Amino acid sequence: MSVTHEDQATAGLPVSFATEPGRYQHWSMSVEGAVATLTLEVAEDGGITGGYELKMNSYDLGVDIELYDAVQRLRFEHPEVRAVVLTSGLDRMFCAGANIRMLAQASHAWKVNFCKFTNETRSGIEDATACSGQTYIAALNGTAAGGGYELALACDQIVLVDDGSSAVALPEVPLLGVLPGTGGLTRLVDKRGVRRDRADVFATTAEGVRGEKAVAWRLVDETVKARDFGPAVRRRADEAVRRSARADESAAPGAGGGSGGVALTPLRPETAGDTTRYDYLRIDRDRGAGTVTIVIAGPAGVPASLAELHEQGAAAWPLAAVRELDDAILSLRADEPSLGTWLLKTEGDPAAMAATSEFLLTHRADWLVNEIIQYWKRTVRRLDATSRSLFALIEPGSCFTGPLLEVALAADRQYMLEGTFEDDGLIPPAVIRLDEFSLGLLPTASGLTRLAVRFCGCEADLRTATATAGQDLAAADAARLGLVTEAPDDLDWADEMRLVIEERASFSPDALTGMEANLRFAGPENYETKIFGRLSAWQNWIFQRPNAAGAQGALRRYGTGQRADYDRKRV
Amino acid sequence: MSVTHEDQATAGLPVSFATEPGRYQHWSMSVEGAVATLTLEVAEDGGITGGYELKMNSYDLGVDIELYDAVQRLRFEHPEVRAVVLTSGLDRMFCAGANIRMLAQASHAWKVNFCKFTNETRSGIEDATACSGQTYIAALNGTAAGGGYELALACDQIVLVDDGSSAVALPEVPLLGVLPGTGGLTRLVDKRGVRRDRADVFATTAEGVRGEKAVAWRLVDETVKARDFGPAVRRRADEAVRRSARADESAAPGAGGGSGGVALTPLRPETAGDTTRYDYLRIDRDRGAGTVTIVIAGPAGVPASLAELHEQGAAAWPLAAVRELDDAILSLRADEPSLGTWLLKTEGDPAAMAATSEFLLTHRADWLVNEIIQYWKRTVRRLDATSRSLFALIEPGSCFTGPLLEVALAADRQYMLEGTFEDDGLIPPAVIRLDEFSLGLLPTASGLTRLAVRFCGCEADLRTATATAGQDLAAADAARLGLVTEAPDDLDWADEMRLVIEERASFSPDALTGMEANLRFAGPENYETKIFGRLSAWQNWIFQRPNAAGAQGALRRYGTGQRADYDRKRV
Repeated sequence: MSVTHEDQATAGLPVSFATEPGRYQHWSMSVEGAVATLTLEVAEDGGITGGYELKMNSYDLGVDIELYDAVQRLRFEHPEVRAVVLTSGLDRMFCAGANIRMLAQASHAWKVNFCKFTNETRSGIEDATACSGQTYIAALNGTAAGGGYELALACDQIVLVDDGSSAVALPEVPLLGVLPGTGGLTRLVDKRGVRRDRADVFATTAEGVRGEKAVAWRLVDETVKARDFGPAVRRRADEAVRRSARADESAAPGAGGGSGGVALTPLRPETAGDTTRYDYLRIDRDRGAGTVTIVIAGPAGVPASLAELHEQGAAAWPLAAVRELDDAILSLRADEPSLGTWLLKTEGDPAAMAATSEFLLTHRADWLVNEIIQYWKRTVRRLDATSRSLFALIEPGSCFTGPLLEVALAADRQYMLEGTFEDDGLIPPAVIRLDEFSLGLLPTASGLTRLAVRFCGCEADLRTATATAGQDLAAADAARLGLVTEAPDDLDWADEMRLVIEERASFSPDALTGMEANLRFAGPENYETKIFGRLSAWQNWIFQRPNAAGAQGALRRYGTGQRADYDRKRV
Repeated sequence: MSVTHEDQATAGLPVSFATEPGRYQHWSMSVEGAVATLTLEVAEDGGITGGYELKMNSYDLGVDIELYDAVQRLRFEHPEVRAVVLTSGLDRMFCAGANIRMLAQASHAWKVNFCKFTNETRSGIEDATACSGQTYIAALNGTAAGGGYELALACDQIVLVDDGSSAVALPEVPLLGVLPGTGGLTRLVDKRGVRRDRADVFATTAEGVRGEKAVAWRLVDETVKARDFGPAVRRRADEAVRRSARADESAAPGAGGGSGGVALTPLRPETAGDTTRYDYLRIDRDRGAGTVTIVIAGPAGVPASLAELHEQGAAAWPLAAVRELDDAILSLRADEPSLGTWLLKTEGDPAAMAATSEFLLTHRADWLVNEIIQYWKRTVRRLDATSRSLFALIEPGSCFTGPLLEVALAADRQYMLEGTFEDDGLIPPAVIRLDEFSLGLLPTASGLTRLAVRFCGCEADLRTATATAGQDLAAADAARLGLVTEAPDDLDWADEMRLVIEERASFSPDALTGMEANLRFAGPENYETKIFGRLSAWQNWIFQRPNAAGAQGALRRYGTGQRADYDRKRV
């Protein structure tokens, strides 16, 4: 099997997704009352891998890791923030998009994983506006091209400076032979309502569109002379602050002693050999079997009060566990492409997990609890979009309820041990329990619950399963209700798990990725799912085509002075 | 640019999509009252290209061309038919799916085009059930594997013989390293409501599922012992006949003198050099510019009555023109991959076209008129799914109204000449006119009209445009309403058309295909659009991956006794 590009993900050091504002190289964050400003000024020599310079505010994975961190911190550390302005520290250039040299030298897997993460971050920006009352405003004080404009498209509003030259543009098709794949094509027509023929013209016009035409075509919301630019953006931010439904932080238990925000203190994963341990999560890699076992430990107890939850902050189980799961997903995606099957397990007291879930439900109107719930939502969606086979293993000693049950339901299959392990008979049989987390609190990207996707087209089965909410379900009941795939007993368990894992490892990794990406998304699609489905799949196809990635392809030839030499045949 | 596979589409003879039951090699059609039976018994040595044997009722493009022909003829030639039974002439084998050797030796372009056509034919089967009251029943008298089961999935009902061995199966992932891409994965979860974890198990179980489990998993509707199989299928067919909403053919003008059906007489395209002429359609190939100009001539007049339309049959403009357009699309897709831009033109009397459109609207309850309308619907949808850039050129002398306006609205861009050509001043300026064809009669695959897709997110623009229905719109009005992209005058027309065509030809064909496939499908998705979007895009990606198509990939190694050697990395 020829591998044409160096596989940076495995050749280099592990990718770290941990950062904090004090360490940012590319973004700066400032908060003034209810308005935060994120300013992009990319360090040209700060690429996450070598071999390219990040000129003109172009970005690579490292730049986007900082952006993701900033978006997360604004939600958790700044409950007072109700509007976020994205702008640039450069003159006349907001952002030139993903760095082309980086794309040209990156392996196919790196490109695909990079695009997935950037897409998730942009969906997260929209989620902050929709679910946290933090409205993002793109203040384009210069040209926004390619991924730069796609970042603006993820914002609720776009203001473009009218200086006679700054434009918005999607030059990927004409210059690079690839798609505006970070949501660009989808958001143009599906989010902003740009007419499809105009979108076609726009996406084939390398120099882009500016001024009143950009407004008329709905590419931006407003274009403003340079001298009025700051005030115009500020007016929009103030208006967004007024309209924000974000819970008043002064009502939060943490108020009085400061902003009420919760500091996202550094995670402390420790890796020894093939095992990585977080506080509540363990990763065991089995390179022979091609698997990763992810064990999430449930909570030991429940906060005594909302105030206690706020006081615990990042140490509280509901927040700590989801942060660790998020980090584990991102790290494994980037660093362990050859471990194709993830075995998802939990361990802990189901009663404590159920009580924690109930606690979160009770206090869901609290801003922090809401943020924690939304974070679980986004993190389980990352599982939906992860190109690994996911098997949930539900064994005695597990605690699959609340948000952890959604982790199981995100899996491609659920195996639940019926009864107990003979040699470990003191641990009672596993149970699962449905609650509001599965019934609406953590919807998939399509808006349907995972339960509704599961029973797509079988309303009666959905109703029957839903009616068991709040009940502990043993394996036989869970199987009968269709909540688990199989419920082998102790006699069969070890053999059957071994067989299904071996079998999975024998299949084409590509075919599995494609199969899972189709079976996981039954039901309606919206622009978020279309970005991960239709748009990403086409982009991945193009990323493999010689016309883009070949030696004479457009990505490789860009900037060399030579034009790409295209095979003209349409496929 | 390396071309790794022989490009059969251009190396061989042109693909002919013309056939008729008397010439079928693989299917036979019998009609008994209201029930038709299509029996598959593939001629092993009847492959459309050489190099493989079509064993076990496996199929290639030639087999599917016959199926498409049969489905069309049942709609037009057999108004009395209300149920169609699909079955096999072999013992214990319904259909083994697409032929693997054919797939292994086919170029990437051939595979993609083959899959698109087979997908369209299966969508057409569903359309016959939904819109023509012809219910398709898959009578699986033997195993249906891969594309064989996917063909069954396109039927309204699936009956599987219970003989202890016959099964339904999707062995693509475990055996071939590709997807069940002819709608299989999508229809499992989205149409039949198979639970996604069971779909995962099923699609990774090479031997498939049979008996009661196949029923319990919703993979088939019924399983019946061999001795009861015929009567059980017949009962379902009779029941479908009773429930059918198909218009009673005895009410048709042609009744009394026979079945009332309209014979689909052979089309007579004549090719001389780069020009092909049909009765109402002309194709001009410009190999230098990389374009095809398709000129559809409008009707000369309107049938005096419904009886006259029936009498004219296949010679009547509304049916002849759409048949020719359908054939032209299919032929150009298969034979001319390097001509990447199609220029869509019409010529004729707009009043006659409007009157013809009105005639069809008036008589839409008639079974033949309904069939003609549904055929236009499917054919314009083929344009939506065609991997070529489509520009509509609306010039003086054209007749873009009714179904022909939908041809223009399917295009990526619409250019309309404002005023007249100076040197041809006797021909009045072009007009376009909206009518019911654009307002609901020819919906896109998503169910939205092309107008609603165009104005997705701009309800006011949609209402304003809709309000002009029935009015002739000159270029300036059409541009103002957003119905055309640009309206240059005679001074600019020739230069601008030359420039946009040259520009289009300079872009990466792959990037254009991906861009168009995204911009054309704004709005909601359903399982038909998901098959052409999400599923096909993933399949096309996999068809390019070394794990499937490489020398050690699964498609090449299948049947050699050697296992595929997979790169285990997940992307």
